[in-house]
Amino acid sequence: MVSEPNGPRPTLEAVAARAGVSRATVSRVVNGGAGVRAAVQEKVRQAVTELGYVPNSAARSLVTRRTGAVAVIIAEPETRVFSDPFFGRQLRGISRELSTADTQLLLLFVEHRDDYPRIGRYLAGGHVDGALMFSLHRDDPLPGMAESAGLPTVYGGRPGWAGAECAPGAAPLLYVDTDNRDGARQAVRHLLGRGRRRIAIITGPLDQTSALDRLDGYRDALGTADPDPRLIADGAFTAGGGERAMARLLDAAPDLDAVFACSDLMANGALRTLRARGRRVPDDVAVVGYDDLEPAAWADPPLTTVRQDVEEMGRLMARLLLRRLGHGGTDAAGLAPVVTEARLVVRESG
Amino acid sequence: MVSEPNGPRPTLEAVAARAGVSRATVSRVVNGGAGVRAAVQEKVRQAVTELGYVPNSAARSLVTRRTGAVAVIIAEPETRVFSDPFFGRQLRGISRELSTADTQLLLLFVEHRDDYPRIGRYLAGGHVDGALMFSLHRDDPLPGMAESAGLPTVYGGRPGWAGAECAPGAAPLLYVDTDNRDGARQAVRHLLGRGRRRIAIITGPLDQTSALDRLDGYRDALGTADPDPRLIADGAFTAGGGERAMARLLDAAPDLDAVFACSDLMANGALRTLRARGRRVPDDVAVVGYDDLEPAAWADPPLTTVRQDVEEMGRLMARLLLRRLGHGGTDAAGLAPVVTEARLVVRESG
Repeated sequence: MVSEPNGPRPTLEAVAARAGVSRATVSRVVNGGAGVRAAVQEKVRQAVTELGYVPNSAARSLVTRRTGAVAVIIAEPETRVFSDPFFGRQLRGISRELSTADTQLLLLFVEHRDDYPRIGRYLAGGHVDGALMFSLHRDDPLPGMAESAGLPTVYGGRPGWAGAECAPGAAPLLYVDTDNRDGARQAVRHLLGRGRRRIAIITGPLDQTSALDRLDGYRDALGTADPDPRLIADGAFTAGGGERAMARLLDAAPDLDAVFACSDLMANGALRTLRARGRRVPDDVAVVGYDDLEPAAWADPPLTTVRQDVEEMGRLMARLLLRRLGHGGTDAAGLAPVVTEARLVVRESG
Repeated sequence: MVSEPNGPRPTLEAVAARAGVSRATVSRVVNGGAGVRAAVQEKVRQAVTELGYVPNSAARSLVTRRTGAVAVIIAEPETRVFSDPFFGRQLRGISRELSTADTQLLLLFVEHRDDYPRIGRYLAGGHVDGALMFSLHRDDPLPGMAESAGLPTVYGGRPGWAGAECAPGAAPLLYVDTDNRDGARQAVRHLLGRGRRRIAIITGPLDQTSALDRLDGYRDALGTADPDPRLIADGAFTAGGGERAMARLLDAAPDLDAVFACSDLMANGALRTLRARGRRVPDDVAVVGYDDLEPAAWADPPLTTVRQDVEEMGRLMARLLLRRLGHGGTDAAGLAPVVTEARLVVRESG
């Protein structure tokens, strides 16, 4: 017999009464039976079956403090997550790695700032063993929430909040990133090598380290800490943002002959604007993107871009967290951030 | 002082000992303080602060049996979820509705059949108050898992498993769907009205009711229970599947003059094949899709299609579940499935 779906769930106490044993004994049996005689275990199991008792892991986790689940939190609204292939690809890597370790992935979005307190309660609530967080912005409350909940966490992208990397005596923050600064340097040096001299940049939001690091790489390649501000525009890491940023750049610096867009989506937006304004790519304006995901291949002309292995980064994040949680008897000592290589891929746009 | 992120979490017992009260008193204070004198509450709160105790909702949910979270389970691998705009759009509606009710959305995918037992454990584990499930296939184990966990559930799409709608005496299953059969009838009648006589269909997987109902609508419009099998091909609800199904149809029935593709993605795939085979759309072959999401507008030529309001369906699912859970003091009695209208949108492809 199973319990009525709509009736109250049978309790541990009811099972204990039915089996004629203590609550603690039922709890021990439900959690594996260690130290309970076989005959007693049998009696408890029979009561569990008769009552249709479903062991509640709220109860179980009071004993084992393990849920077998990991929260993956993307600090972006669901609409952005589903319109940017970066997130889907990173999740693919995470999902496969967690699935292999028989760990449940729970995906959470952040729609509004109002959502943070609720997410904080969930993280503090003992429902997950750890968290993976990505697309964090400066002053994001999520890292603090994970810390005060004592929740092991791995970050996607170098954490950029004040004190993130220098808390004295603290365990190092674990994160996975690519070498964004070097990737940007490669992109801009490539454009310089092709004879371009007025190279603009469409950045991501500058409260994210990935956007800041790529802007630094642009400065490195140009050899100046203080490039012409008319050549810099924020495209918010979206196609529409890239489209509008390109229009602003053309208005401010009509003589530009190249643009480094810090994501393929923004590069696609820039291509639309250049087409609308009658500028030929790459003849009049060379375009280089960043990511090398689907939009780079679909672009017209196909994008020269900086490749980062986003799926592998997802896998590495999940693997770091699983090691941090001691999965498969691994040792959490000596874990450190991972920074993967970026690599220029030359196609037709620049 | 907050607890060390890496140290053991302080327990309820430790708080009780520090405050010199019973475990039950601490529990009452942590859960709102009803029936506990203000001075005692103050003592407990002080101990909580001193020890950095984080109220564990594993403990709290033993009392309240409420987690404030809802699982949204898409019975598809993450790759499909991120390549088909249907899912993102439905999630948008769900996410907004849950967020308004301050309820946490947890998204779960099904990568492999091996994932089911783990998802079942999670659902039975007291981590969520209810579930929304969509894209279920016949014989999917998820509904049975939700039922045996006693978890209130609302389905996206009419449930198709044996006995789903006729369990004697059981509460009716709650689901949200569009009238797929009528939508398909409208699509095929439109093609007939334009003088098309050899109308093929590219179906979804026939272990899903949405695919079956649309095939039934096609049969209704043609006025036969037994249409020419050379005009029927399964396109698996993906663009690649639609592309290959169109090729098989052209090989089997080169005289076809129209195709009803049961999703916009499959219609886009079909358009690629028709272009590659030199068939003009709509002159040689008229094409009608289903969904009216982004791919319909992007298509070349823009797709005539059947519109279903996917975001609204998501909102309705979430709203049904919240009412079922008694949110805002609502009464769960009299809740029933919701079937929304489908409506033909005529553009250029057919």
